[in-house]
Amino acid sequence: MNELKMSKAFTLIEPGPVVLITTNDGKKNNIMTISWTMVLDFTPAFALTTGEWNYSFAALRKTKECVISIPTVDMLDKVVGIGICSGVKLTPVEAKKVKAPLIKECLANIECKVIDIVKKHNIVVLEAVAAYFDSLRKEKRTIHAVGDGTFIVDGRKLDRKKMMASKIPNGLQL
Amino acid sequence: MNELKMSKAFTLIEPGPVVLITTNDGKKNNIMTISWTMVLDFTPAFALTTGEWNYSFAALRKTKECVISIPTVDMLDKVVGIGICSGVKLTPVEAKKVKAPLIKECLANIECKVIDIVKKHNIVVLEAVAAYFDSLRKEKRTIHAVGDGTFIVDGRKLDRKKMMASKIPNGLQL
Repeated sequence: MNELKMSKAFTLIEPGPVVLITTNDGKKNNIMTISWTMVLDFTPAFALTTGEWNYSFAALRKTKECVISIPTVDMLDKVVGIGICSGVKLTPVEAKKVKAPLIKECLANIECKVIDIVKKHNIVVLEAVAAYFDSLRKEKRTIHAVGDGTFIVDGRKLDRKKMMASKIPNGLQL
Repeated sequence: MNELKMSKAFTLIEPGPVVLITTNDGKKNNIMTISWTMVLDFTPAFALTTGEWNYSFAALRKTKECVISIPTVDMLDKVVGIGICSGVKLTPVEAKKVKAPLIKECLANIECKVIDIVKKHNIVVLEAVAAYFDSLRKEKRTIHAVGDGTFIVDGRKLDRKKMMASKIPNGLQL
Protein backbone atom coordinates (compact mmCIF):
# COMPACT_ATOMS: atom_id res chain seq x y z
CA MET A 1 0.00 0.00 0.00
CA ASN A 2 1.24 3.45 -0.93
CA GLU A 3 0.45 6.54 1.06
CA LEU A 4 -2.17 8.66 -0.64
CA LYS A 5 -2.13 12.47 -0.53
CA MET A 6 -4.71 13.74 1.94
CA SER A 7 -6.15 16.03 -0.75
CA LYS A 8 -7.16 12.95 -2.74
CA ALA A 9 -8.64 10.88 0.10
CA PHE A 10 -12.19 12.23 -0.28
CA THR A 11 -12.31 10.70 -3.79
CA LEU A 12 -12.37 7.23 -2.18
CA ILE A 13 -15.68 7.94 -0.40
CA GLU A 14 -17.40 10.37 -2.79
CA PRO A 15 -18.56 7.61 -5.22
CA GLY A 16 -20.47 5.93 -2.37
CA PRO A 17 -18.86 2.47 -2.06
CA VAL A 18 -19.60 -0.06 0.66
CA VAL A 19 -16.85 0.31 3.28
CA LEU A 20 -15.51 -1.60 6.23
CA ILE A 21 -14.94 0.28 9.49
CA THR A 22 -12.33 -1.12 11.86
CA THR A 23 -11.95 -0.16 15.50
CA ASN A 24 -9.80 -1.33 18.40
CA ASP A 25 -11.33 -1.00 21.85
CA GLY A 26 -8.00 -1.58 23.63
CA LYS A 27 -8.58 -5.33 23.82
CA LYS A 28 -9.38 -6.46 20.33
CA ASN A 29 -10.03 -5.37 16.77
CA ASN A 30 -13.58 -5.14 15.49
CA ILE A 31 -14.97 -4.64 12.02
CA MET A 32 -18.30 -3.64 10.53
CA THR A 33 -19.69 -3.23 7.02
CA ILE A 34 -21.58 -0.02 6.27
CA SER A 35 -22.71 1.99 3.30
CA TRP A 36 -24.23 4.95 5.13
CA THR A 37 -21.31 7.36 4.66
CA MET A 38 -20.88 10.83 3.16
CA VAL A 39 -18.08 13.28 2.41
CA LEU A 40 -18.38 16.40 4.61
CA ASP A 41 -15.36 18.35 3.43
CA PHE A 42 -12.36 18.13 1.09
CA THR A 43 -9.95 18.33 4.04
CA PRO A 44 -11.16 15.46 4.14
CA ALA A 45 -13.92 14.99 6.67
CA PHE A 46 -16.53 12.26 6.51
CA ALA A 47 -19.82 11.37 8.19
CA LEU A 48 -21.11 7.90 8.89
CA THR A 49 -24.36 6.75 10.45
CA THR A 50 -24.48 4.05 13.06
CA GLY A 51 -25.77 3.73 16.60
CA GLU A 52 -26.15 1.87 19.86
CA TRP A 53 -27.28 -1.28 18.05
CA ASN A 54 -23.81 -1.66 16.57
CA TYR A 55 -20.96 -3.07 18.64
CA SER A 56 -18.43 -0.81 16.91
CA PHE A 57 -20.30 2.31 18.04
CA ALA A 58 -19.08 1.86 21.61
CA ALA A 59 -15.48 1.60 20.39
CA LEU A 60 -15.88 4.64 18.15
CA ARG A 61 -17.21 6.64 21.08
CA LYS A 62 -14.59 5.43 23.53
CA THR A 63 -11.44 5.49 21.39
CA LYS A 64 -12.46 8.28 18.99
CA GLU A 65 -10.59 6.49 16.23
CA CYS A 66 -11.28 4.15 13.32
CA VAL A 67 -10.10 3.09 9.89
CA ILE A 68 -12.30 3.24 6.80
CA SER A 69 -11.27 0.38 4.49
CA ILE A 70 -12.51 0.09 0.94
CA PRO A 71 -13.08 -3.41 -0.41
CA THR A 72 -13.45 -4.42 -4.06
CA VAL A 73 -15.85 -6.72 -5.86
CA ASP A 74 -13.70 -9.85 -5.40
CA MET A 75 -14.24 -9.39 -1.63
CA LEU A 76 -18.05 -9.20 -1.83
CA ASP A 77 -18.80 -12.41 0.06
CA LYS A 78 -16.44 -11.39 2.87
CA VAL A 79 -18.05 -7.95 3.02
CA VAL A 80 -21.54 -9.45 3.24
CA GLY A 81 -20.28 -12.06 5.73
CA ILE A 82 -18.96 -9.35 8.06
CA GLY A 83 -22.38 -7.72 8.01
CA ILE A 84 -24.04 -10.96 9.11
CA CYS A 85 -21.70 -12.68 11.55
CA SER A 86 -18.18 -12.51 12.87
CA GLY A 87 -15.43 -14.98 12.00
CA VAL A 88 -14.55 -13.57 8.57
CA LYS A 89 -10.77 -13.62 8.10
CA LEU A 90 -8.96 -10.52 6.87
CA THR A 91 -5.41 -9.41 7.62
CA PRO A 92 -4.95 -6.51 10.06
CA VAL A 93 -1.99 -4.19 9.40
CA GLU A 94 -0.74 -1.69 11.97
CA ALA A 95 -1.86 1.87 11.28
CA LYS A 96 0.33 4.92 11.80
CA LYS A 97 -1.80 7.37 13.73
CA VAL A 98 -4.65 5.27 15.17
CA LYS A 99 -4.91 1.96 17.03
CA ALA A 100 -7.59 0.55 14.71
CA PRO A 101 -5.99 -1.64 12.03
CA LEU A 102 -5.74 -1.16 8.28
CA ILE A 103 -6.98 -4.14 6.25
CA LYS A 104 -4.33 -5.60 3.97
CA GLU A 105 -6.76 -7.06 1.44
CA CYS A 106 -8.56 -3.74 0.82
CA LEU A 107 -7.95 -1.37 -2.10
CA ALA A 108 -7.63 1.64 0.19
CA ASN A 109 -7.52 2.51 3.89
CA ILE A 110 -8.16 5.84 5.61
CA GLU A 111 -7.08 6.41 9.24
CA CYS A 112 -9.62 8.63 10.96
CA LYS A 113 -10.19 10.50 14.22
CA VAL A 114 -13.75 10.94 15.52
CA ILE A 115 -14.14 14.72 15.87
CA ASP A 116 -17.83 14.82 16.79
CA ILE A 117 -20.90 12.66 17.31
CA VAL A 118 -24.29 14.17 16.45
CA LYS A 119 -26.28 12.03 18.88
CA LYS A 120 -29.70 13.13 17.70
CA HIS A 121 -29.11 11.53 14.29
CA ASN A 122 -26.48 8.88 15.14
CA ILE A 123 -24.00 10.67 12.86
CA VAL A 124 -20.30 10.14 13.58
CA VAL A 125 -18.08 12.91 12.17
CA LEU A 126 -14.58 11.84 11.12
CA GLU A 127 -11.41 13.65 10.12
CA ALA A 128 -8.90 11.70 8.05
CA VAL A 129 -5.32 11.70 9.33
CA ALA A 130 -3.63 9.30 6.88
CA ALA A 131 -4.63 7.43 3.71
CA TYR A 132 -3.28 4.55 1.65
CA PHE A 133 -4.05 3.13 -1.79
CA ASP A 134 -2.89 -0.20 -3.21
CA SER A 135 -2.04 0.87 -6.75
CA LEU A 136 -0.53 -2.53 -7.60
CA ARG A 137 -3.85 -4.28 -7.03
CA LYS A 138 -5.45 -5.49 -10.26
CA GLU A 139 -9.08 -5.45 -9.12
CA LYS A 140 -10.03 -1.86 -8.43
CA ARG A 141 -13.82 -2.03 -8.89
CA THR A 142 -15.68 -1.14 -5.69
CA ILE A 143 -19.22 -2.19 -4.81
CA HIS A 144 -22.34 -0.18 -4.00
CA ALA A 145 -25.05 -1.63 -1.76
CA VAL A 146 -28.62 -1.16 -2.95
CA GLY A 147 -30.03 -2.15 0.44
CA ASP A 148 -32.27 -4.99 -0.77
CA GLY A 149 -29.51 -7.61 -0.81
CA THR A 150 -28.16 -6.65 -4.24
CA PHE A 151 -24.93 -4.82 -5.04
CA ILE A 152 -23.88 -2.71 -8.02
CA VAL A 153 -20.31 -3.12 -9.24
CA ASP A 154 -18.36 -0.15 -10.65
CA GLY A 155 -18.73 0.00 -14.43
CA ARG A 156 -16.87 2.22 -16.82
CA LYS A 157 -15.37 5.59 -15.97
CA LEU A 158 -16.33 8.77 -17.84
CA ASP A 159 -14.02 11.78 -17.91
CA ARG A 160 -15.45 15.31 -17.59
CA LYS A 161 -12.28 16.90 -16.17
CA LYS A 162 -12.13 19.64 -18.79
CA MET A 163 -15.78 20.58 -18.40
CA MET A 164 -15.41 20.66 -14.61
CA ALA A 165 -11.99 22.32 -14.39
CA SER A 166 -13.27 25.35 -12.46
CA LYS A 167 -14.94 23.16 -9.81
CA ILE A 168 -12.24 20.59 -9.08
CA PRO A 169 -10.35 21.19 -5.82
CA ASN A 170 -6.66 22.18 -5.87
CA GLY A 171 -4.32 19.25 -6.25
CA LEU A 172 -6.75 17.24 -8.37
CA GLN A 173 -6.85 19.46 -11.45
CA LEU A 174 -5.57 18.61 -14.92
CA MET B 1 -43.46 7.91 -13.20
CA ASN B 2 -44.98 5.39 -10.82
CA GLU B 3 -45.26 5.96 -7.10
CA LEU B 4 -42.67 3.98 -5.18
CA LYS B 5 -43.37 2.45 -1.78
CA MET B 6 -41.76 4.52 0.96
CA SER B 7 -40.07 1.39 2.34
CA LYS B 8 -38.08 1.12 -0.91
CA ALA B 9 -37.07 4.76 -1.28
CA PHE B 10 -33.81 4.44 0.69
CA THR B 11 -32.54 1.99 -1.97
CA LEU B 12 -32.33 4.92 -4.41
CA ILE B 13 -29.76 6.75 -2.27
CA GLU B 14 -27.90 3.89 -0.55
CA PRO B 15 -25.72 3.09 -3.64
CA GLY B 16 -24.35 6.66 -3.57
CA PRO B 17 -25.40 8.14 -6.93
CA VAL B 18 -24.97 11.76 -7.96
CA VAL B 19 -28.32 13.47 -7.35
CA LEU B 20 -30.04 16.69 -8.27
CA ILE B 21 -31.74 18.68 -5.53
CA THR B 22 -34.59 20.96 -6.54
CA THR B 23 -36.05 23.72 -4.39
CA ASN B 24 -38.64 26.45 -4.89
CA ASP B 25 -38.11 29.62 -2.88
CA GLY B 26 -41.64 30.90 -3.58
CA LYS B 27 -40.55 32.79 -6.68
CA LYS B 28 -38.69 30.29 -8.82
CA ASN B 29 -37.35 26.76 -9.03
CA ASN B 30 -33.68 26.11 -8.40
CA ILE B 31 -31.55 23.05 -8.91
CA MET B 32 -28.15 21.86 -7.72
CA THR B 33 -26.00 18.78 -8.34
CA ILE B 34 -24.54 17.06 -5.28
CA SER B 35 -23.03 13.72 -4.34
CA TRP B 36 -22.55 14.35 -0.62
CA THR B 37 -25.61 12.43 0.58
CA MET B 38 -26.20 9.55 3.00
CA VAL B 39 -29.08 7.36 4.17
CA LEU B 40 -29.88 8.05 7.85
CA ASP B 41 -32.77 5.65 8.36
CA PHE B 42 -34.97 3.18 6.49
CA THR B 43 -38.08 5.32 7.19
CA PRO B 44 -36.47 6.82 5.00
CA ALA B 45 -34.43 9.72 6.24
CA PHE B 46 -31.44 11.19 4.42
CA ALA B 47 -28.59 13.60 5.10
CA LEU B 48 -26.97 15.92 2.62
CA THR B 49 -24.09 18.33 3.03
CA THR B 50 -24.21 21.83 1.63
CA GLY B 51 -23.81 25.32 3.01
CA GLU B 52 -23.97 29.08 2.69
CA TRP B 53 -21.91 28.99 -0.51
CA ASN B 54 -24.77 27.24 -2.28
CA TYR B 55 -27.78 29.23 -3.48
CA SER B 56 -30.14 26.33 -2.77
CA PHE B 57 -29.17 26.29 0.91
CA ALA B 58 -31.17 29.48 1.55
CA ALA B 59 -34.24 27.92 -0.06
CA LEU B 60 -33.79 24.67 1.90
CA ARG B 61 -33.59 26.66 5.12
CA LYS B 62 -36.52 28.91 4.29
CA THR B 63 -38.99 26.46 2.74
CA LYS B 64 -37.87 23.30 4.56
CA GLU B 65 -38.64 21.30 1.43
CA CYS B 66 -36.85 19.83 -1.57
CA VAL B 67 -36.92 17.03 -4.11
CA ILE B 68 -34.04 14.60 -4.59
CA SER B 69 -33.97 13.60 -8.27
CA ILE B 70 -31.82 10.77 -9.54
CA PRO B 71 -30.35 11.17 -13.02
CA THR B 72 -28.88 8.41 -15.20
CA VAL B 73 -25.75 8.20 -17.30
CA ASP B 74 -27.40 9.58 -20.47
CA MET B 75 -27.93 12.82 -18.50
CA LEU B 76 -24.27 13.19 -17.41
CA ASP B 77 -23.52 16.36 -19.36
CA LYS B 78 -26.65 18.05 -18.01
CA VAL B 79 -25.74 16.97 -14.47
CA VAL B 80 -22.22 18.39 -14.83
CA GLY B 81 -23.61 21.50 -16.54
CA ILE B 82 -25.93 22.20 -13.59
CA GLY B 83 -22.92 22.03 -11.27
CA ILE B 84 -21.10 24.68 -13.30
CA CYS B 85 -23.66 27.15 -14.53
CA SER B 86 -27.38 27.69 -14.80
CA GLY B 87 -29.36 27.52 -18.02
CA VAL B 88 -29.55 23.72 -18.27
CA LYS B 89 -33.02 22.71 -19.46
CA LEU B 90 -34.95 20.00 -17.63
CA THR B 91 -38.70 19.59 -17.28
CA PRO B 92 -40.26 20.44 -13.89
CA VAL B 93 -43.29 18.37 -12.85
CA GLU B 94 -45.55 19.38 -9.98
CA ALA B 95 -44.89 17.43 -6.78
CA LYS B 96 -47.65 16.24 -4.46
CA LYS B 97 -46.51 17.25 -0.99
CA VAL B 98 -43.81 19.89 -1.57
CA LYS B 99 -43.50 23.02 -3.76
CA ALA B 100 -40.12 22.00 -5.19
CA PRO B 101 -40.59 20.28 -8.56
CA LEU B 102 -39.93 16.71 -9.61
CA ILE B 103 -37.74 16.38 -12.72
CA LYS B 104 -39.45 14.54 -15.56
CA GLU B 105 -36.22 13.31 -17.18
CA CYS B 106 -34.90 11.63 -14.02
CA LEU B 107 -35.13 7.93 -13.17
CA ALA B 108 -36.52 8.62 -9.71
CA ASN B 109 -37.72 11.52 -7.56
CA ILE B 110 -38.11 11.74 -3.79
CA GLU B 111 -40.16 14.52 -2.19
CA CYS B 112 -38.54 15.54 1.10
CA LYS B 113 -39.16 17.75 4.13
CA VAL B 114 -36.18 19.30 5.95
CA ILE B 115 -36.53 18.06 9.53
CA ASP B 116 -33.27 19.45 10.92
CA ILE B 117 -30.12 21.35 9.98
CA VAL B 118 -26.92 20.49 11.87
CA LYS B 119 -25.31 23.91 11.41
CA LYS B 120 -21.92 22.96 12.80
CA HIS B 121 -21.35 20.50 9.95
CA ASN B 122 -23.64 21.95 7.24
CA ILE B 123 -25.70 18.76 7.34
CA VAL B 124 -29.32 19.00 6.18
CA VAL B 125 -31.53 16.20 7.53
CA LEU B 126 -34.42 15.14 5.29
CA GLU B 127 -37.47 12.95 5.71
CA ALA B 128 -39.00 11.53 2.54
CA VAL B 129 -42.75 12.08 2.09
CA ALA B 130 -43.32 10.64 -1.41
CA ALA B 131 -41.24 8.80 -4.01
CA TYR B 132 -41.52 7.96 -7.69
CA PHE B 133 -39.67 5.65 -10.07
CA ASP B 134 -39.86 5.61 -13.86
CA SER B 135 -39.92 1.87 -14.48
CA LEU B 136 -40.57 2.32 -18.21
CA ARG B 137 -37.27 4.13 -18.70
CA LYS B 138 -34.72 2.03 -20.58
CA GLU B 139 -31.56 3.62 -19.18
CA LYS B 140 -31.42 2.87 -15.47
CA ARG B 141 -27.67 3.16 -14.82
CA THR B 142 -26.88 5.94 -12.35
CA ILE B 143 -23.56 7.77 -12.04
CA HIS B 144 -21.14 8.14 -9.13
CA ALA B 145 -18.89 11.20 -8.88
CA VAL B 146 -15.26 10.53 -7.98
CA GLY B 147 -14.62 14.20 -7.22
CA ASP B 148 -11.72 14.69 -9.62
CA GLY B 149 -13.89 15.33 -12.69
CA THR B 150 -14.46 11.65 -13.48
CA PHE B 151 -17.62 9.62 -12.97
CA ILE B 152 -18.21 5.90 -12.50
CA VAL B 153 -21.23 4.39 -14.26
CA ASP B 154 -23.21 1.55 -12.65
CA GLY B 155 -21.90 -1.81 -13.84
CA ARG B 156 -23.43 -5.20 -13.27
CA LYS B 157 -25.64 -6.15 -10.34
CA LEU B 158 -24.78 -8.99 -7.98
CA ASP B 159 -27.45 -10.74 -5.91
CA ARG B 160 -26.77 -11.71 -2.30
CA LYS B 161 -30.40 -11.65 -1.14
CA LYS B 162 -30.33 -15.18 0.25
CA MET B 163 -27.11 -14.63 2.18
CA MET B 164 -28.44 -11.34 3.59
CA ALA B 165 -32.02 -12.43 4.26
CA SER B 166 -31.81 -11.78 8.02
CA LYS B 167 -30.54 -8.21 7.50
CA ILE B 168 -32.87 -6.91 4.80
CA PRO B 169 -35.60 -4.58 6.08
CA ASN B 170 -39.24 -5.65 6.00
CA GLY B 171 -40.91 -5.13 2.66
CA LEU B 172 -37.72 -5.76 0.68
CA GLN B 173 -37.19 -9.43 1.53
CA LEU B 174 -37.40 -12.35 -0.87
